[in-house]
Amino acid sequence: MEVEFKALLDDLDVLEKSLSDPAPIHKLRSHVENLANLSKCNPQRRSRVKELSSEVVDSNPYSRLMALQRMGIVDNYERIRGFSVAIVGIGGVGSVAAEMLTRCGIGRLLLYDYDTVELANMNRLFFRPDQVGMTKTDAAVQTLAEINPDVVLESFTMNITTVQGFETFTSSLTNKSFCPSKEGSGVDLVLSCVDNYEARMAVNQACNELRQTWMESGVSEDAVSGHIQLLVPGETACFACAPPLVVASGIDERTLKREGVCAASLPTTMGVVAGLLVQNSLKFLLNFGEVSPYLGYNSLKDFFPTMKMRPNPQCSNVACLERQNTCLRNQKGTLLLKLRWKLMHPQLSMKAHSMLIMSGT
Amino acid sequence: MEVEFKALLDDLDVLEKSLSDPAPIHKLRSHVENLANLSKCNPQRRSRVKELSSEVVDSNPYSRLMALQRMGIVDNYERIRGFSVAIVGIGGVGSVAAEMLTRCGIGRLLLYDYDTVELANMNRLFFRPDQVGMTKTDAAVQTLAEINPDVVLESFTMNITTVQGFETFTSSLTNKSFCPSKEGSGVDLVLSCVDNYEARMAVNQACNELRQTWMESGVSEDAVSGHIQLLVPGETACFACAPPLVVASGIDERTLKREGVCAASLPTTMGVVAGLLVQNSLKFLLNFGEVSPYLGYNSLKDFFPTMKMRPNPQCSNVACLERQNTCLRNQKGTLLLKLRWKLMHPQLSMKAHSMLIMSGT
Repeated sequence: MEVEFKALLDDLDVLEKSLSDPAPIHKLRSHVENLANLSKCNPQRRSRVKELSSEVVDSNPYSRLMALQRMGIVDNYERIRGFSVAIVGIGGVGSVAAEMLTRCGIGRLLLYDYDTVELANMNRLFFRPDQVGMTKTDAAVQTLAEINPDVVLESFTMNITTVQGFETFTSSLTNKSFCPSKEGSGVDLVLSCVDNYEARMAVNQACNELRQTWMESGVSEDAVSGHIQLLVPGETACFACAPPLVVASGIDERTLKREGVCAASLPTTMGVVAGLLVQNSLKFLLNFGEVSPYLGYNSLKDFFPTMKMRPNPQCSNVACLERQNTCLRNQKGTLLLKLRWKLMHPQLSMKAHSMLIMSGT
Repeated sequence: MEVEFKALLDDLDVLEKSLSDPAPIHKLRSHVENLANLSKCNPQRRSRVKELSSEVVDSNPYSRLMALQRMGIVDNYERIRGFSVAIVGIGGVGSVAAEMLTRCGIGRLLLYDYDTVELANMNRLFFRPDQVGMTKTDAAVQTLAEINPDVVLESFTMNITTVQGFETFTSSLTNKSFCPSKEGSGVDLVLSCVDNYEARMAVNQACNELRQTWMESGVSEDAVSGHIQLLVPGETACFACAPPLVVASGIDERTLKREGVCAASLPTTMGVVAGLLVQNSLKFLLNFGEVSPYLGYNSLKDFFPTMKMRPNPQCSNVACLERQNTCLRNQKGTLLLKLRWKLMHPQLSMKAHSMLIMSGT
């Protein structure tokens, strides 16, 4: 509507010049300017919150989250404001994951996608028909900023599988301006919510290089199953340690796509996978429950397989091998420390010994 | 903004009368009227679709759902347009369930709730801060109609646990105007997404009386577990067959609430429970996969227990006992039929016999 208001104001200018008494036009202009401002901002948008409160009043957007402390689930919920999470792929899973983290009051979200919203996306949650044509990251920022203005949102409309895109991706992950004292990279977790292996390999490469913990997610082409997976470089399998056949064979997956054929998708499967992914992320960040290394979802039988995946010493990814070697060196160091300590204090049990090791003694 | 546009038009009227040449004012009025119309309607709202198409184009909101047929998951996806689903409780689970069914293109949704949207609800999915103060059913209809104008939405802002509310509830369930040829009640499934036992007992009573299949859902007070359950009157346990202690003891649960204390809730747990609930509903309605009789979700350990619950012959609910007796009579009738047939055709195997029984011979 901005264009229309501009045209109206221009017409008023023309009219003002043709009149001997410009006073009524001044009044009209003030009216029109007021309307233009009203059309820009939503007067009911909630204001920012300085500190999370556990007060039980209708106007507190955080009371039900802070109640997790009273229930004994989370020690210090307010820590969530210090975390940065990067979400790669703002589609059926990524957009819902972003909305969940936004409603939970995450500190900062970095959103990556190169695609635009289409009507064909309307069978999943999140995007609305009036956002068709917008880039997915811009549409997401528009909606998320309305939902929770406390979250710092960063929109990256780009393809991480290009040379330039990959560079921008890794440098954005290492930007520590949000939390200058943070160790490691500038984000606490990367969530991969992409729909192709090429993009997963790019996330895998960046995370291996940066020693960045990430979680991968996926939904099957027939829309009725999915999975989430935790990847800690060097400690668990990386995405290249046991790649799907299409990756291992070096096939360009774009050649597999057929004209006039698309994958199926359901808002249910994608909503469940996003929920499991963000629940696992909250457990990882806020330190409660057990973080699942892998969790599958077969909706036809309501079967939820879990498993652990060890890193592959013959992995084709050089950065993964480096991370594996660092882990092995650290493990050897810990074992040597344990052995030396045991020789010095033979009377103490292994349990007491482990407790001392864990407490950093 | 309507008031502001009215004032602007009034000012233009006054100006027009004071001028010798009213032509520039006519142009201005046309501008302002155009803007007023733009502010009222969303020009990008999508138009209704007559028939679901499987054509793979960006502008088709159903291509990814119709692909379920090509993938061999669903025989005839278009059947979804003939189904009516009632959702009781449009909170953290019910609102997301409604959005999922709307995006799937369900024929008709009946929404029941007496509550209004508060900022304290913003930690779950669906509602937005600009909807604070609206009734939950009206806010839901506003959002869902924008997402998919093909769905018939009916909003019931009322409490089903009052005498008047219960009557309106049962009569709305039996209204067959959407599908006059439908057998049984006017809806195919009732989803209970309420947060208290009194409301669950009301849904249970109505469904037992109407012989209405329904699904129950719940999320724990500490926000980290939940469940869904299928209830077929007479065939499975009803909600009164094995009631929670608070119901069995006849305690008024409202007396258990403490001042300044609220339950915790998470968008993740509620999103997962809504996803499992609607997935089970789709399997039930569209006849694919296995419909789960009960599915639990313990998010701390990612444990998903399942079980079957038989009806209790000592159930306190009279309508449940009537349904149980009908089922028993039908079972006895089937057994007698089988026995008579066996005596007449001793040479046929039991498998052939079952196949003939199933095909209605």
